Amino acid sequence: MQKVKLIIAYDGTDFHGFARQQGLRTVQGILEEVLAGVLGHPVEVFGSGRTDAGVHARAQVVHFQQEKGPPPEKWPYILLRRLPPDIVAVAAEPVPDDFHARFSVRWKTYRYSIARGEVPDIFRRRFTWHVPGPLNLDEMRQAAAALVGTHDFTSFCAAATPVEDKRRTIAEIRFEPGERELHIYCTGNGFLQHMVRIIVGTLVQVGQGRRAAAEIADILAARDRRAAGPTAPPQGLVLWSVEY
Amino acid sequence: MQKVKLIIAYDGTDFHGFARQQGLRTVQGILEEVLAGVLGHPVEVFGSGRTDAGVHARAQVVHFQQEKGPPPEKWPYILLRRLPPDIVAVAAEPVPDDFHARFSVRWKTYRYSIARGEVPDIFRRRFTWHVPGPLNLDEMRQAAAALVGTHDFTSFCAAATPVEDKRRTIAEIRFEPGERELHIYCTGNGFLQHMVRIIVGTLVQVGQGRRAAAEIADILAARDRRAAGPTAPPQGLVLWSVEY
Repeated sequence: MQKVKLIIAYDGTDFHGFARQQGLRTVQGILEEVLAGVLGHPVEVFGSGRTDAGVHARAQVVHFQQEKGPPPEKWPYILLRRLPPDIVAVAAEPVPDDFHARFSVRWKTYRYSIARGEVPDIFRRRFTWHVPGPLNLDEMRQAAAALVGTHDFTSFCAAATPVEDKRRTIAEIRFEPGERELHIYCTGNGFLQHMVRIIVGTLVQVGQGRRAAAEIADILAARDRRAAGPTAPPQGLVLWSVEY
Repeated sequence: MQKVKLIIAYDGTDFHGFARQQGLRTVQGILEEVLAGVLGHPVEVFGSGRTDAGVHARAQVVHFQQEKGPPPEKWPYILLRRLPPDIVAVAAEPVPDDFHARFSVRWKTYRYSIARGEVPDIFRRRFTWHVPGPLNLDEMRQAAAALVGTHDFTSFCAAATPVEDKRRTIAEIRFEPGERELHIYCTGNGFLQHMVRIIVGTLVQVGQGRRAAAEIADILAARDRRAAGPTAPPQGLVLWSVEY
């Protein structure tokens, strides 16, 4: 048996998220089906983590086991014509048995893109949240700084999430303001459900002057989803990179 | 009556082209329907020209006449919530009666985008043609130079086109090679059906070494569609700007 690490990109628009769900179009479900078809044996695909419906990936990492099968490096070419056009295998390599796409993760980076023009950008509408009007970037940076570090992120987590320990470490929140889009990169050791989207929804409220940056400490302390801002829409979010 | 000039952008993926066709989803058809709904009288929309099914526009120009109605500058905001998400009105202004979106055109510029990575770029797949492998840009530039000027472009026109005079002037073909995409900008006083796409299909053959740049003169002289290369796929093409 050979363990293979595969880096994949996908346009999440037409998927019900990453995780396999009976009868629904998911990234994991399609990957498992296509890989099994090539290898001739059942394949279980493990991802670095789930992404929600409508969320994209530039470099999601997955692993799977193959008996015999092609040299791992060939997978991107083999998959090019077998995967649907909204999933692409970008790179592949053999990995040692103790590698695990999820448990070996050190840092993950998400990018959230906000379209800033007065009207939406027609070529980026599937990949941006359109927020016209002024945004105070200084205030947003201050609010972001208060989120960096190790905190209990219960207030920034979908209310129904059954995870017990909601402490996570955010290493960096970086702003990249461009002419047409504001990109927000968020790097952490792990993210709760909707966490990046709730952070972005809250930062946008701060940028619009509807909340003060100084409120972030109180929001964290509340440990209550209702204390934070709205969940930003999924289409602006991209799983950008995963470090091991 | 007031004549209004409207600049629109659209994602051509889900349209049967610009021109109104009974029972099909077209840009002109939707614009006329939505404008008539707001104005309360029938509206005829005139575009700077047609775009084929699957071809996009960053700045298509149209004009129409309105009785009373809103101040022309307000149209982008009025249309924002009335047009489907794949058409956006970018700007609008009143124009004198002698302005005509089609007949007043001086120059039009199209941009064709070729994705150059080994695997397709998932976020640009709706707007690029994926051509992996080496392309000799010097040869392509030489071939393009032979197309610039006033020529009979019969060889670069869809065979069935009923236009009599196939002489057109290309003012410039400009290459913008980037890390992930090669953009080709083509500016002319008018374009025949499929003309830019046949030019791009032929230039790519030259770049791949399957034709010599020196053949362009012969292809033009042949005045025969079969002399030129294949028609590049529609999704890489964007009507970029129109000058009056």
